[in-house]
Amino acid sequence: MKSLKTLQHGEGVPIRNIRIGSPFWSKVIDLIHQTVLPYQWEALNDRIPDAAPSFAVHNFEVAAGLKEGEFGGMLFQDSDLAKWLEAAAYRLQTHPDPELEQTVDGLIDLIEKAQMEDGYLNTYFQLKALDRRWTNLFECHELYCAGHMMEAAVAYYEATGKDKLLKVMQRMADHIDRTIGPEPGKLQGYPGHQEIELALVKMARALKDVRYLHMAKYFIDARGQEPHFFDAEWEKRDRISEWSHQLSSRPNKEYNQAHMPVREQTVAVGHAVRAVYMYAGMADVAVHTGDAGLLDACRRIWDNIVSKQMYITGGIGSSHHGEAFTFDYDLPNDTVYAETCASIGLIFFAWRMLLAEPKASYADVLERALYNTVLASMALDGRHFFYVNPLEVWPVASEKDPGKHHVRPVRQKWFGCACCPPNLARLLTSLGEYLYSVHENTLYTHLYIGGEMEAVVGGQRVSIVQETNYPWDGEIQLKIQEQTKRAIGLALRIPGWCRKAEILVNGKTVDVDGCMKNGYAVIERIWSKGDTIVLRLQMPVEVVYANPSVRENVWKGALQRGPLVYCLEEVDNGSNLPAMALCEDAALKIDVRPDLLGGIVVIEGIASRLADTEQERLYRFTPPETVEVSFTAIPYFLWGNRTPGEMLVWLPVRY
Amino acid sequence: MKSLKTLQHGEGVPIRNIRIGSPFWSKVIDLIHQTVLPYQWEALNDRIPDAAPSFAVHNFEVAAGLKEGEFGGMLFQDSDLAKWLEAAAYRLQTHPDPELEQTVDGLIDLIEKAQMEDGYLNTYFQLKALDRRWTNLFECHELYCAGHMMEAAVAYYEATGKDKLLKVMQRMADHIDRTIGPEPGKLQGYPGHQEIELALVKMARALKDVRYLHMAKYFIDARGQEPHFFDAEWEKRDRISEWSHQLSSRPNKEYNQAHMPVREQTVAVGHAVRAVYMYAGMADVAVHTGDAGLLDACRRIWDNIVSKQMYITGGIGSSHHGEAFTFDYDLPNDTVYAETCASIGLIFFAWRMLLAEPKASYADVLERALYNTVLASMALDGRHFFYVNPLEVWPVASEKDPGKHHVRPVRQKWFGCACCPPNLARLLTSLGEYLYSVHENTLYTHLYIGGEMEAVVGGQRVSIVQETNYPWDGEIQLKIQEQTKRAIGLALRIPGWCRKAEILVNGKTVDVDGCMKNGYAVIERIWSKGDTIVLRLQMPVEVVYANPSVRENVWKGALQRGPLVYCLEEVDNGSNLPAMALCEDAALKIDVRPDLLGGIVVIEGIASRLADTEQERLYRFTPPETVEVSFTAIPYFLWGNRTPGEMLVWLPVRY
Repeated sequence: MKSLKTLQHGEGVPIRNIRIGSPFWSKVIDLIHQTVLPYQWEALNDRIPDAAPSFAVHNFEVAAGLKEGEFGGMLFQDSDLAKWLEAAAYRLQTHPDPELEQTVDGLIDLIEKAQMEDGYLNTYFQLKALDRRWTNLFECHELYCAGHMMEAAVAYYEATGKDKLLKVMQRMADHIDRTIGPEPGKLQGYPGHQEIELALVKMARALKDVRYLHMAKYFIDARGQEPHFFDAEWEKRDRISEWSHQLSSRPNKEYNQAHMPVREQTVAVGHAVRAVYMYAGMADVAVHTGDAGLLDACRRIWDNIVSKQMYITGGIGSSHHGEAFTFDYDLPNDTVYAETCASIGLIFFAWRMLLAEPKASYADVLERALYNTVLASMALDGRHFFYVNPLEVWPVASEKDPGKHHVRPVRQKWFGCACCPPNLARLLTSLGEYLYSVHENTLYTHLYIGGEMEAVVGGQRVSIVQETNYPWDGEIQLKIQEQTKRAIGLALRIPGWCRKAEILVNGKTVDVDGCMKNGYAVIERIWSKGDTIVLRLQMPVEVVYANPSVRENVWKGALQRGPLVYCLEEVDNGSNLPAMALCEDAALKIDVRPDLLGGIVVIEGIASRLADTEQERLYRFTPPETVEVSFTAIPYFLWGNRTPGEMLVWLPVRY
Repeated sequence: MKSLKTLQHGEGVPIRNIRIGSPFWSKVIDLIHQTVLPYQWEALNDRIPDAAPSFAVHNFEVAAGLKEGEFGGMLFQDSDLAKWLEAAAYRLQTHPDPELEQTVDGLIDLIEKAQMEDGYLNTYFQLKALDRRWTNLFECHELYCAGHMMEAAVAYYEATGKDKLLKVMQRMADHIDRTIGPEPGKLQGYPGHQEIELALVKMARALKDVRYLHMAKYFIDARGQEPHFFDAEWEKRDRISEWSHQLSSRPNKEYNQAHMPVREQTVAVGHAVRAVYMYAGMADVAVHTGDAGLLDACRRIWDNIVSKQMYITGGIGSSHHGEAFTFDYDLPNDTVYAETCASIGLIFFAWRMLLAEPKASYADVLERALYNTVLASMALDGRHFFYVNPLEVWPVASEKDPGKHHVRPVRQKWFGCACCPPNLARLLTSLGEYLYSVHENTLYTHLYIGGEMEAVVGGQRVSIVQETNYPWDGEIQLKIQEQTKRAIGLALRIPGWCRKAEILVNGKTVDVDGCMKNGYAVIERIWSKGDTIVLRLQMPVEVVYANPSVRENVWKGALQRGPLVYCLEEVDNGSNLPAMALCEDAALKIDVRPDLLGGIVVIEGIASRLADTEQERLYRFTPPETVEVSFTAIPYFLWGNRTPGEMLVWLPVRY
């Protein structure tokens, strides 16, 4: 890894060095470990009654010659299994579990058996179309599936030291390297669905082999160049689609961000998941190859997303047509896509930008996506999931308006295209990764999640115990566990949602304004065992307003407290939620409700509600009367866990 | 026609007895006569450069053996020609024009030549699929095209007394009667696209043959009965679609209102044009067969449309998916369909209900659809048309959001599916039909359009000259041209939009409240030549509010004056129109602008506009500042006649 210069950048703290123990998150983590992972394993083995079948394990069994059968599911079905395996690996990094490890080892044996002699591994092509492998990178997800399995392999290697899957995927990576690349005689192609770029960077680091980094760089560099690979490939396969087996139209290159070289791109376009996976890979490659220009492109695209194309929930991808970004300030609440995977990918992108340059604005977005869209995608029972994460739901419209069929008012057991649930699992089992990072001599805190950690900062061991009831409460206590020999910086993120923060070190107030740097309060000192840092983030109920260019949200506001966006549900507030408006004197207050949804803080207040006094007349010359009503808002991430009904994030505001 | 009892009902005044001469309408009528009809004739002959080709005349020429070639266009292409011919016939009823008559005679010769020996006439099947005729009523519009040509035939017969086309269509009707019907050995079917029902009632009246009325009644009665004809037909044609020539799914019966017997239907569903054509036909059949139960069904469906599914512009059909009604109170402004043809069909339905029972509420809807959606569908140049009539347009969204591609910000020259332009032509050339009706001893006025009329009321000739600057002004003067021998009622519609009306007869005030009946002020007297009735309808600027169940319009208002709905355009008010809100002290006033758009009355006022002071931040904790701005609204029907840009009907209201 020494052959390329790198940009200055931070490093994460290994997951195994983090133990999460927080009132809010322990429940989630326990649910993931005890319910979600086993449930998803059952789903991947097609053992959930009345759920869409997966075929994911089945396909490997058939490919391995262990049973007869046909390929089932989407042509990228292998990736579901890879993501689950990666999730299991993260669990094993923090919670040894022989039974789970045995299951995974068995699965890895199966995967190894399925691999071909030449290193190729993709059950769709192996079972259905071996003669067509590598003929349709635009549509066929071979590199995507490979990337996911590489990520799983690295995670399992880091968890257990076992390298069987890592070697399987090294053979696949080498197969890819022999097949695709810039050299004459190779296919000068790149993936239709990005993912392998960031995976190859992980492979390069795990295997300490710069060749895989070069491959990632090639995929980034080749993309969008003319003459266009996707056009040439399309002609070569006689314009036939692998999906329909019929003639297809010329590849839409915006759809997968191949409409121009990536360094020239300034605006997020196309399929949102592909986009953010690619941007994450671009940031990885930029940092690890010392490519400042590429990092600049990442910054430009980042700014476009977060200042013009991101929902308040951290959702991205405004349209279900192509599961895609649309255009600046187009953020419809009721026809939204905001795929769970896209917000997970946004977290990947944010994290890599944060490692490249520790600015709290990246962590703000990471936190926004995590606490809202990502958490919302799973039911409290750990067995139902959202693929689409709307900000406004009218169940009858979801049922009767084909333009809103994709907006489900109720989470589902599983999906024909089940990319999201295992993606969620791998994100949450690796949550520890996103809490801290080390930049030179400074330890950064990003997310406030209680527990213990250990890291090496400037060559010195640092160990901290964090206690907090965040996000319900804004007080965080960090306790230093070991003396440091030299001064070390502790950079505490002051979240963008917080207007006033207070810091005490061993009871003494710190001048927060005086030590702010890029959104972090940086305290540098020689730390003693028992040093206690208390961070108090003021966390009032806030009414958030959107840029007026977001026409869906003009004259509206959303409720937020801390990192949590709130919403109204029909079960608390009756139907026709948009007929309610926040008043200037809304008297917003919080109420702690241990009885509700596992124990939450609700927001209560007064709203005006349009009263329907003339039931039968559709149009009238007198404004509807308004009545004062009290309302209850719950955290957005918990919507849809009670009686199904309407849900609304952006409320009209009378101001 | 004596063999069936009828319900008591009114009769229209023949178009030839109406001469329109009004500042507002004469321009429109002249445009239709001088530009639209010739332009459309050119379009139907494929002589408009850069416009979608029609093939309509071409298809008849090929079918008549006059030239070689293939069928072109939609399988219902014949109907475009039929509607144009009908429009030309109405023109000839009021404005003899030998050149036009010669053109039409030539066209009728062509149509006659194209007719088959057995009476069958449909160029699609004659040229492409003769062996498949009558095998796919669900999809194939054979009865629809026949219906339109029957309407044209009746209109041309009434215009000129020439019965060549009428006989052609009588032979086609007889062919249909031999082929389809309740009797054993016939096909027990009915049309997938309704239209022939109302056409057969016209045939019955023109030919004074009750058999055609029976046919119409059969089509109404058979519809939606079980076992279901569309299912049986689908199986019989091996489930093959005539459109795709591939396997099709089971017929969606709601789509064409065949999901239950029509008498049991209470809610408007499915394709909006099919729906209203059918409802119009139901009303016709109800009245002419004395079927009070069927008329009740019409009333129920009418109430559902106008109180729950109609835009303020008289547009119907909320969704482009199936060009269809959706569900109660679902009236999105920006993804709306509101097809021009659907509002024309709503006028047909309204008119027949009005003849069945003279209630001003029917005329209110007729007027709303006419002055707003229908007029808006044509550009001021008479050469560009809207198919879809939105209430909110954001051009970049129309371009980039596939869910809004159907919402065009600019009228088009012609359409691949060009049902709307010739439908508009036939409606406007027959506009005279909708001004008056006669119910027993009373003459009803419905639309206020200046000109002259003659009618027979209670056996007496009545002749009136009407003068008015309506809809720009609410004063209407009616002058009686002839003495009546006995007392005759004159029923003046007091429009639903008018809160205060004044009537003077020969300068003497009439007690309007005292003579109101179903929305009409009825004045009964023996009329003398020169009697002058002045009707003064107060016509202030009104802010209209929607039922709060219409969630798209909560906390919003629309501007209306008289029958005209107004809108804001970007060219007058800048971009991001939804960021403007009406204030309570909006100081709304009108301004007469002879210079603008051919001379109009605009509405001006003060609005609040959200100011974008923090350009780069998408979400903030402080509400956007507001600034006071003046705005200009123009009549909705004139939108899109200047620089293309945003348009908005429903404005946020700060109240």
